[in-house]
Amino acid sequence: MVMILNMLSLSREEASEALKGGRITVSVFGLGKMGLPLALVFAERGANVIGVDISERLVEQILRGENPFPFEPGVEEMLKSSLERGKFSATTDGEWAASRSDISVVIVPVYASRAGIDLKSMDQAMEQIGRGLREGSIVITETTLPPGTTEKYIPRLELLSGLKAGKDFGIAHAPERTMSGRVVRDITESYPKILGAINSETLEPLIGIYSVINKKGVYPVSSIRAAEAVKVFEGVYRDVNIALANELAMISESMGLNVNEIIEAANSQPYSHIHRPGAGVGGHCIPVYPWFLIHSFPELSRLIRLSREINELMPIHMVELTIRALNAAGRPLKGSRVILLGLSYRGNVKEHMNSPSLPLAFELMEWGSRVEIMDPYYSEEEVRGFKLEPFTGSFEGADAIVVATDHREFRELDLKKIGREMRTPVIVDGRYIYADRDELREFYYIAPGIPLKEPRRE
Amino acid sequence: MVMILNMLSLSREEASEALKGGRITVSVFGLGKMGLPLALVFAERGANVIGVDISERLVEQILRGENPFPFEPGVEEMLKSSLERGKFSATTDGEWAASRSDISVVIVPVYASRAGIDLKSMDQAMEQIGRGLREGSIVITETTLPPGTTEKYIPRLELLSGLKAGKDFGIAHAPERTMSGRVVRDITESYPKILGAINSETLEPLIGIYSVINKKGVYPVSSIRAAEAVKVFEGVYRDVNIALANELAMISESMGLNVNEIIEAANSQPYSHIHRPGAGVGGHCIPVYPWFLIHSFPELSRLIRLSREINELMPIHMVELTIRALNAAGRPLKGSRVILLGLSYRGNVKEHMNSPSLPLAFELMEWGSRVEIMDPYYSEEEVRGFKLEPFTGSFEGADAIVVATDHREFRELDLKKIGREMRTPVIVDGRYIYADRDELREFYYIAPGIPLKEPRRE
Repeated sequence: MVMILNMLSLSREEASEALKGGRITVSVFGLGKMGLPLALVFAERGANVIGVDISERLVEQILRGENPFPFEPGVEEMLKSSLERGKFSATTDGEWAASRSDISVVIVPVYASRAGIDLKSMDQAMEQIGRGLREGSIVITETTLPPGTTEKYIPRLELLSGLKAGKDFGIAHAPERTMSGRVVRDITESYPKILGAINSETLEPLIGIYSVINKKGVYPVSSIRAAEAVKVFEGVYRDVNIALANELAMISESMGLNVNEIIEAANSQPYSHIHRPGAGVGGHCIPVYPWFLIHSFPELSRLIRLSREINELMPIHMVELTIRALNAAGRPLKGSRVILLGLSYRGNVKEHMNSPSLPLAFELMEWGSRVEIMDPYYSEEEVRGFKLEPFTGSFEGADAIVVATDHREFRELDLKKIGREMRTPVIVDGRYIYADRDELREFYYIAPGIPLKEPRRE
Repeated sequence: MVMILNMLSLSREEASEALKGGRITVSVFGLGKMGLPLALVFAERGANVIGVDISERLVEQILRGENPFPFEPGVEEMLKSSLERGKFSATTDGEWAASRSDISVVIVPVYASRAGIDLKSMDQAMEQIGRGLREGSIVITETTLPPGTTEKYIPRLELLSGLKAGKDFGIAHAPERTMSGRVVRDITESYPKILGAINSETLEPLIGIYSVINKKGVYPVSSIRAAEAVKVFEGVYRDVNIALANELAMISESMGLNVNEIIEAANSQPYSHIHRPGAGVGGHCIPVYPWFLIHSFPELSRLIRLSREINELMPIHMVELTIRALNAAGRPLKGSRVILLGLSYRGNVKEHMNSPSLPLAFELMEWGSRVEIMDPYYSEEEVRGFKLEPFTGSFEGADAIVVATDHREFRELDLKKIGREMRTPVIVDGRYIYADRDELREFYYIAPGIPLKEPRRE
């Protein structure tokens, strides 16, 4: 076993050197899409890493060297090499892991929605860490959290460990700033690492540690809570700006204007960063973080709450657009056969967390249409798992194509052929993937912020 | 007199050459801060320019070569040289001007507020143009307008002139994208010129014309209405994002966090452009344009309307902060002597259109405080014209300094000395001009998004 360090006594340089010299053990709680890559990067940079997850199946799979996230570049190779070099192991026993670690990083999922904030995984991880916590070590939360959350665990950690925060152990928040499909790059070089710690004894060695991990270095802020707020504000900015784009889209429809033409022109000056409208916002981040503020400050979060509401209504607006386009073609939505393109919330990944496709599909069905889901990332069985029908494989007799996801494969569909096969050639394009196509002249085409175009008769 | 051109028959290149060769006469309606510089740039580039304004006083002043906007770089020189070279004249007779012009540009002020949209000056200019309009000429609106406005004048122009739009005369919108204090630079080189026209016969020669004016070239859009929407959307983006910053500021206050630290850290990644919070939004643009959409689409403009409301409430929030800081010092606002720094809505310019200083001052007085206005850009008489009291010249016995404007001069005040003179050393900093000062240790300091700091006792 490695010697026991007092992390809180190290300078930046000493901490960097200790990490690179293999003298630091890091446990990473949460081996999901963000956590496993983070653990492997730590191992790659020299740490002895213990990955911790509550899923025995996942831990065993990882220990066998099987990459659970094959679509995440870099993970495969790092997993193989760190296992081979004995720099990485995994366990479900968080208490044991914490008891042998100089640093415990928590990157478990935290969910939030209109219904509330669910910190269960965080509670569990902190409970294990508290029981195993050893003197001189540091606890870091990387999960995005409602500001104030990390500090709320201090009394419990102190009680369980008998140690004093700031003196006997350090605590800090260093929010992950990653996007799936590019997690390793984001961890190591995309943006500086935001870091807030309980005191300078904790901050200094962590600056040293994260400077080894991240090429862009560390951006220290004045408190743990400030670091938490940084990440939440980033997400809220995006959600509010997408809501603004969606509101401008609906106004543009009323004016008979193409919103994307206007947005692009507006953004030709450097003070304007109007976002893209669309069928809705999904994922683990943008639709989640606003709730952290809304639930904590309901009276103060008026703009944030209204933005969330507007974005949540976009799938319903997509249904309205479908009704409008079908109506122009002389057909009601009831009884129509609708092919919904995409279950994922984002193009070219298999992720459906908070995907707008789901409310969109169910709302279409609510109106009496038959909906089939086309998504090359999901098997027929998986689609049925959502209580949805998979695509039959033929556009013959279909009445509308509704695009919810910008998967590469959808751009390659033969629209000319499909238009001839469909009973009613309607496209409702929630991601603008066909907006510039010539073949549209044979379709009824509509999209959020793009007024209906009818087929041109020869 | 120059030969009569048919503008609509010119190619881009022919129009450019005609402008540079002095063969085009341009009348510019509205010789305000934006209009006069525009007129002079046209003259500078070769046009024979007739400036038109309803103010006889202004026209005479300009004809005498007296620059009405001495703070606008470049105007002085251009006015002198274009008058000397006989390239520029001015008149109140718009009909006469239009009758001799190949191009009539309208850049008169249009106001909007909660109360409605005031197009009176635009109506008047169009009336004159319609009476004078000659065949083969083009009418351009440069004033920012509610989308659809320019086209609404077409029937009237046709009726008055007996000409047919698109055939006998052209019409277009080319929104000014300028900021006072840098108008000439913005006209000639800051951003591409957005341009939407009734048809390609109008668009093509205007691309040629504006390419001569603007180094960044022309950004043509598909319609007049789309061009109008571009400029309005730019302004709305700014207003909504300032409102978001203000909402985040108020949430930060509740969390005990400094909002500016968090915003700067969040903006360290390239997807985040969180704006600056503050005492409120003034000027001719940002607080005005949202009303163009709100009045036209009240049900659809929910986020835009709420943003306007949040920004309009910031002066009231400044009063709350003043009360909070005075309260910590054991003093009520009633009977306190408050020095309000700044009447202008923006630093280093003399402009008070929609300035948040005005509601802020009146609300402070409403609470029973005595308010004195310090603003080096306004004379005592001018201040009294707003029914406000000018600064007596001494901070002796004052209870609070409330910063509403970021004038350079305010940053140079001797805070150490002032702190000793004041009865209650309170600063409420609506523009964060003192946020990083050492001298604050002797003050109660508070700002939007910055929790109260009390003086440190030695």
